[in-house]
Amino acid sequence: MKFIGSKENIENCDIVLVGLPFDGTSSFKSGSRFAPNSVRIYSDVLETYSPVFDKDIENVNFYDYGDICITVNNFQKFSQQVHNTYSELLKQSKRILSVGGEHLVTLPVVSAYKEFFENFKLIHIDAHADLRDNYLDEKFSHATVMRRISEVIKPEDIYQFGMRSGTKDEFVFAKNNTKFQPFHLNDNLNFIDELKGKKVYITIDLDILDPSVFPGTGTPEPGGVSFKELENFLKKLYNLDIIGADVVELLPDNDTSGISSVVAAKVIRELLILINK
Amino acid sequence: MKFIGSKENIENCDIVLVGLPFDGTSSFKSGSRFAPNSVRIYSDVLETYSPVFDKDIENVNFYDYGDICITVNNFQKFSQQVHNTYSELLKQSKRILSVGGEHLVTLPVVSAYKEFFENFKLIHIDAHADLRDNYLDEKFSHATVMRRISEVIKPEDIYQFGMRSGTKDEFVFAKNNTKFQPFHLNDNLNFIDELKGKKVYITIDLDILDPSVFPGTGTPEPGGVSFKELENFLKKLYNLDIIGADVVELLPDNDTSGISSVVAAKVIRELLILINK
Amino acid sequence: MKFIGSKENIENCDIVLVGLPFDGTSSFKSGSRFAPNSVRIYSDVLETYSPVFDKDIENVNFYDYGDICITVNNFQKFSQQVHNTYSELLKQSKRILSVGGEHLVTLPVVSAYKEFFENFKLIHIDAHADLRDNYLDEKFSHATVMRRISEVIKPEDIYQFGMRSGTKDEFVFAKNNTKFQPFHLNDNLNFIDELKGKKVYITIDLDILDPSVFPGTGTPEPGGVSFKELENFLKKLYNLDIIGADVVELLPDNDTSGISSVVAAKVIRELLILINK
Amino acid sequence: MKFIGSKENIENCDIVLVGLPFDGTSSFKSGSRFAPNSVRIYSDVLETYSPVFDKDIENVNFYDYGDICITVNNFQKFSQQVHNTYSELLKQSKRILSVGGEHLVTLPVVSAYKEFFENFKLIHIDAHADLRDNYLDEKFSHATVMRRISEVIKPEDIYQFGMRSGTKDEFVFAKNNTKFQPFHLNDNLNFIDELKGKKVYITIDLDILDPSVFPGTGTPEPGGVSFKELENFLKKLYNLDIIGADVVELLPDNDTSGISSVVAAKVIRELLILINK
Amino acid sequence: MKFIGSKENIENCDIVLVGLPFDGTSSFKSGSRFAPNSVRIYSDVLETYSPVFDKDIENVNFYDYGDICITVNNFQKFSQQVHNTYSELLKQSKRILSVGGEHLVTLPVVSAYKEFFENFKLIHIDAHADLRDNYLDEKFSHATVMRRISEVIKPEDIYQFGMRSGTKDEFVFAKNNTKFQPFHLNDNLNFIDELKGKKVYITIDLDILDPSVFPGTGTPEPGGVSFKELENFLKKLYNLDIIGADVVELLPDNDTSGISSVVAAKVIRELLILINK
Amino acid sequence: MKFIGSKENIENCDIVLVGLPFDGTSSFKSGSRFAPNSVRIYSDVLETYSPVFDKDIENVNFYDYGDICITVNNFQKFSQQVHNTYSELLKQSKRILSVGGEHLVTLPVVSAYKEFFENFKLIHIDAHADLRDNYLDEKFSHATVMRRISEVIKPEDIYQFGMRSGTKDEFVFAKNNTKFQPFHLNDNLNFIDELKGKKVYITIDLDILDPSVFPGTGTPEPGGVSFKELENFLKKLYNLDIIGADVVELLPDNDTSGISSVVAAKVIRELLILINK
Repeated sequence: MKFIGSKENIENCDIVLVGLPFDGTSSFKSGSRFAPNSVRIYSDVLETYSPVFDKDIENVNFYDYGDICITVNNFQKFSQQVHNTYSELLKQSKRILSVGGEHLVTLPVVSAYKEFFENFKLIHIDAHADLRDNYLDEKFSHATVMRRISEVIKPEDIYQFGMRSGTKDEFVFAKNNTKFQPFHLNDNLNFIDELKGKKVYITIDLDILDPSVFPGTGTPEPGGVSFKELENFLKKLYNLDIIGADVVELLPDNDTSGISSVVAAKVIRELLILINK
Repeated sequence: MKFIGSKENIENCDIVLVGLPFDGTSSFKSGSRFAPNSVRIYSDVLETYSPVFDKDIENVNFYDYGDICITVNNFQKFSQQVHNTYSELLKQSKRILSVGGEHLVTLPVVSAYKEFFENFKLIHIDAHADLRDNYLDEKFSHATVMRRISEVIKPEDIYQFGMRSGTKDEFVFAKNNTKFQPFHLNDNLNFIDELKGKKVYITIDLDILDPSVFPGTGTPEPGGVSFKELENFLKKLYNLDIIGADVVELLPDNDTSGISSVVAAKVIRELLILINK
Repeated sequence: MKFIGSKENIENCDIVLVGLPFDGTSSFKSGSRFAPNSVRIYSDVLETYSPVFDKDIENVNFYDYGDICITVNNFQKFSQQVHNTYSELLKQSKRILSVGGEHLVTLPVVSAYKEFFENFKLIHIDAHADLRDNYLDEKFSHATVMRRISEVIKPEDIYQFGMRSGTKDEFVFAKNNTKFQPFHLNDNLNFIDELKGKKVYITIDLDILDPSVFPGTGTPEPGGVSFKELENFLKKLYNLDIIGADVVELLPDNDTSGISSVVAAKVIRELLILINK
Repeated sequence: MKFIGSKENIENCDIVLVGLPFDGTSSFKSGSRFAPNSVRIYSDVLETYSPVFDKDIENVNFYDYGDICITVNNFQKFSQQVHNTYSELLKQSKRILSVGGEHLVTLPVVSAYKEFFENFKLIHIDAHADLRDNYLDEKFSHATVMRRISEVIKPEDIYQFGMRSGTKDEFVFAKNNTKFQPFHLNDNLNFIDELKGKKVYITIDLDILDPSVFPGTGTPEPGGVSFKELENFLKKLYNLDIIGADVVELLPDNDTSGISSVVAAKVIRELLILINK
Repeated sequence: MKFIGSKENIENCDIVLVGLPFDGTSSFKSGSRFAPNSVRIYSDVLETYSPVFDKDIENVNFYDYGDICITVNNFQKFSQQVHNTYSELLKQSKRILSVGGEHLVTLPVVSAYKEFFENFKLIHIDAHADLRDNYLDEKFSHATVMRRISEVIKPEDIYQFGMRSGTKDEFVFAKNNTKFQPFHLNDNLNFIDELKGKKVYITIDLDILDPSVFPGTGTPEPGGVSFKELENFLKKLYNLDIIGADVVELLPDNDTSGISSVVAAKVIRELLILINK
Repeated sequence: MKFIGSKENIENCDIVLVGLPFDGTSSFKSGSRFAPNSVRIYSDVLETYSPVFDKDIENVNFYDYGDICITVNNFQKFSQQVHNTYSELLKQSKRILSVGGEHLVTLPVVSAYKEFFENFKLIHIDAHADLRDNYLDEKFSHATVMRRISEVIKPEDIYQFGMRSGTKDEFVFAKNNTKFQPFHLNDNLNFIDELKGKKVYITIDLDILDPSVFPGTGTPEPGGVSFKELENFLKKLYNLDIIGADVVELLPDNDTSGISSVVAAKVIRELLILINK
């Protein structure tokens, strides 16, 4: 069982899709550990052809690598595993599309990228700022992940879009430190010009979408964007040099209709096209 | 158990509502066989009065005929049954509103209409183009239904709206052969003028709606229209001469909240008003 | 288990949150009796800080009082209980935010308010007009509640927004008697000027929201507003003098994903800010 | 949509199946108002032939009459409706199988029977004793129904089986007044001899079954009987003169798998055979 | 994603597990097409060690081959595919454990076995007799599968256990033609002696289990056996020479709790041990 | 919101009910963090009177203390919190009934008890042995909890009942070290005599019950006991000196019908009676 359109072998593939089913710090509902297999199953609903991009992932050389994660709640072990595998893949010049798991999985991924790419920009799409310095007295949490990442790459290299929930402190920190465009996508696209020619990593917390569009998530926040708004935003990124991306926070069991898994699969399909060129 | 507002007897009714619970070719999830009864039960949530049209279906002479289908997966038998019943009804000058069932049910319905109406236009609203020539090596499938219909009536008499999924080939075929307005409803309404005075049949695959609005379907495709967009589109059709219509691809079991069944019932209520005059 | 941000004691609190788990007249699905506890549990998903208002309910002196209701279907007894408790609270100059329960709970609440405030305006946000004179031969019903309230306060003091369902008679009554702006929120905000300086009570039937946003309700009506539209409307009310409010018609069991409960909790959080000043 | 095996017309039928979708006093979860239609739909899973009885309901002259109930929570009105219809049916010597609805529906049914049959015995199968004198200060409730019935027919004519929940007072009342065999079915079948030759009415609250077997109910009580135990009990009643029966407390929405509806339908099928002779 | 304990390569494996996700003739609810992947995912709940058998499938050389099925409702094509693959596997002396899909999948499997094994006995465990000669006017259906198989191998070589549903005709046919022990498992185990030394194929329709134990099935029939009764029955078969087996009629989507998928996975684990020696 | 029958104040209460919503090491599905509130809500379905014991918890002086847990996955912090609170309560001679959370919560509870009671016996009822020395390379896990406890109290003081799943090593360890009665409850009750006059702690992993009875759990294991078997077992313990108990592994979200929460609540009610005397 692989994502639709995956090649049979990794050898000639430029892009690798990796499942990271870690959800050890999810604080309300957990269950994103089941996301990678769910998107594989539901990818079958989709066509390989994307009419919006007029591209077909049959023509993208990507390989579904399977999952990495042999722990439940030990983040250090999980980080080590990610580091080991991703270093190996990056050494082979693969571009990696990761499927969470919770948002904390982005930290070891970005850390591994940092060892191979001295400078890159990070686009962060999310309902939540994830900028707390600690959460429930823990440094490593889905609620602190962007703060930790701001210690790996420079905060001003982080472009945050769409946040509609957080503490007052997080909103203040964001305004003072990151490139912060809260509440909406698409309002101001000047950043595209800034990012042209730079290497860019994209992290998408799918709870950016309104809970109506994406009920299968652990901390749903009313007032999010529609699928079309997200899709339009992604279209704008087409000419950027995307070196990697991740899609996180799908909880399949919180949505028995399966529509959230299809949404995640479609975002992944479009990201494969974005990363490909 | 009948759809709200149905008259008790068929005799004086101009419009007949028929359930066609066939879903034998559904390729991902199936279960639209349970749709007709579900819309009857959920129609009870609605009022008979439509404020948008300022019309009440208490004043529409329609009769809920019940269901036709005594097979599980034998399309030929099902087609024969539809042919027999619809020929009889059309002979009596009834206009028929069919409730699927999967989209393939539209094929025998349109074929029966073709025997009674030499020329008519078909409005097709759908997330998918349904224009493959075959699917999984089958000629008759929910994924080929519009291609087959394009062999019953002329392709240029098919007005397709809102498609956001398909193969590259389908999109090319549509552009070259049908009246094709993909991605959105409402963008260009010149077609209304073309259709004025013509007989028109409407087929609505409810997956045109975004999966948030209509999760109860078998092949949900993110990025669809809102209910209001669909309703506005239907309002534009008010002055056309609608000779029949169908509503397909509701899978009640894929939506335990029941909102998809209410959506289907409300579309049916508005179609009854449209067909009535 | 209390709503997030509730103080520990009622003494210094200006605002009291009261659960009214009565659903005895719900005519399609019932179960709003479980709403108050569900919003308490799901309020934990939210932050206490509202970025839209740039206010934090940690700074609002409110107390979650728990629930009032010791009957299943006896509306007279329920009314008496509400009267007793609310008279006491209003005597202490508390402002009350009620969490239904079905919409009929608003009747005894408004009646209790009427004893303390000679004149006030009522903002009514809803999918349904609730203006029938009787329903299923009953005077007291969720479908008649606004008609009954129009006998407690003057009909012209009732500002109705967003109705998209009702009988023809209800729409006619509304046009002739109340301040009626059907179908949408936000179209015409002249009413804000009229209400400036007046005391205002707000009743929100959450089925104003589209069923995609709020599937957990008993009589879902397709074609409603998005969460952002509701939030924008509430922002417009910020400078009014809100003396009380209620939020009704959440059926948690009709939405296993829980997103409807989070929506209700977020509306309550914003109302606490609105009522606070 | 009728129960499997129903004849097309009532004329030659000895047995009438009537739906009584009243659930106005349900105190935890409600929703048995949807039971009659659900058993009709799910009856389609079953065969008309009962191997246990070696009888086929194709050979039972019964007619599915549809539902009676035009109120939500007004028990007096509901009682009046039942009285009117049942008097008429009993006058025509029909035997009636009622499908609730909640257990309180049995009260007007038994009252109607009492007017036609001076003496009859009542077999009551249930998890709960339902013998409170009042509940939440109400005389008429699903929790008081057998107490009220003990005022219509003599308490010693009530044979109660399987109760595993109640107040201390109810258990004491039962031991002192009714024929009371709590906890199990089948332990002591001497009562069969007592009932031979007498007219017998059977009321089955399906929550007698363990919640594993019948999760779709409003007040599930762990520790109930298996389906086979219930079936074996029913077999013992084969030679009795059953003049009527009812099956109550199915809440279809509390069981998305549908197995509870099938259980109810199968009990109804076996009761049709029991009543038939 | 493979079943727990599967070896990485087929070469040294004696046993092959094959998914047959065909459900084209399911007549009430369908969806067993999703069963093979669901049992793979849920097999992870189990240990590889079976305490009942005191065996560990780590020590069973089996390989999870994946699924065969590239059609939705075309049984002839499906049969051809099964024939091609199974002939190849049987030629290599593999023993095959098939995971349906619906019960009709057993027909092409048994036909393929018949070409390699002149004589074998078939143990059939099921709630339904599946002995109709046709169903809905079709010869090939889940409801006719054992009748068709009785034309491939001799009826008297078919040992049927536990049937509790069928038409009168099916029960008569079974009594006259097959080895028929309806209603229960375990009552009479003389058949074990008859089967000693013979080659035996086992087909298990999981709806033999009570719907409480196995709600995730398409035609649930109340009154079935417990898991322990099935397990005890399987233990009795330990010394037989099992050449193949299948497990059918799991509908994962009809059981959101997942317990049905775990039941299926555990039955498969025990069958792997049974087939192994 | 408190468990039914809880007193208003802790002062005169001998027994304290404490929620421990920790599920940080759950390895398949997690979500027992929501169990304590769910049993409080569903306890309302039950009567306070237990007919089996002929006792009423209205007459048991117990207090529902609320929950302890301010971490998601940090077991050391959680242990510290349990230690702090339980030491305080035990100092006041309270007997404590804990409601998990996952099974690992029992470790800090037993450790706290060990500081106050030099010798006590532990009755462990469970589907799984929980005796691994480590799991996924972790020492502290729901799968190792009894092994860790066997290092706090002597293994021979642990009476294990009903295990039907584990590794070969765990079964061997149990046979050699603990009092081990696998597969069933009730088979051999000699242990009661051994325990008479001793202090006894009871830990109940509710997955001892068959998944049909208790689907709302994270690692369901087919083949468990019925509710009546568990209830009968508990009755046997009535004359023992129970100093504390816990009930773990309810995942309310994995059972939308709620029957698992009622089962847990009923077990808790019976345990309150057992602990009381």
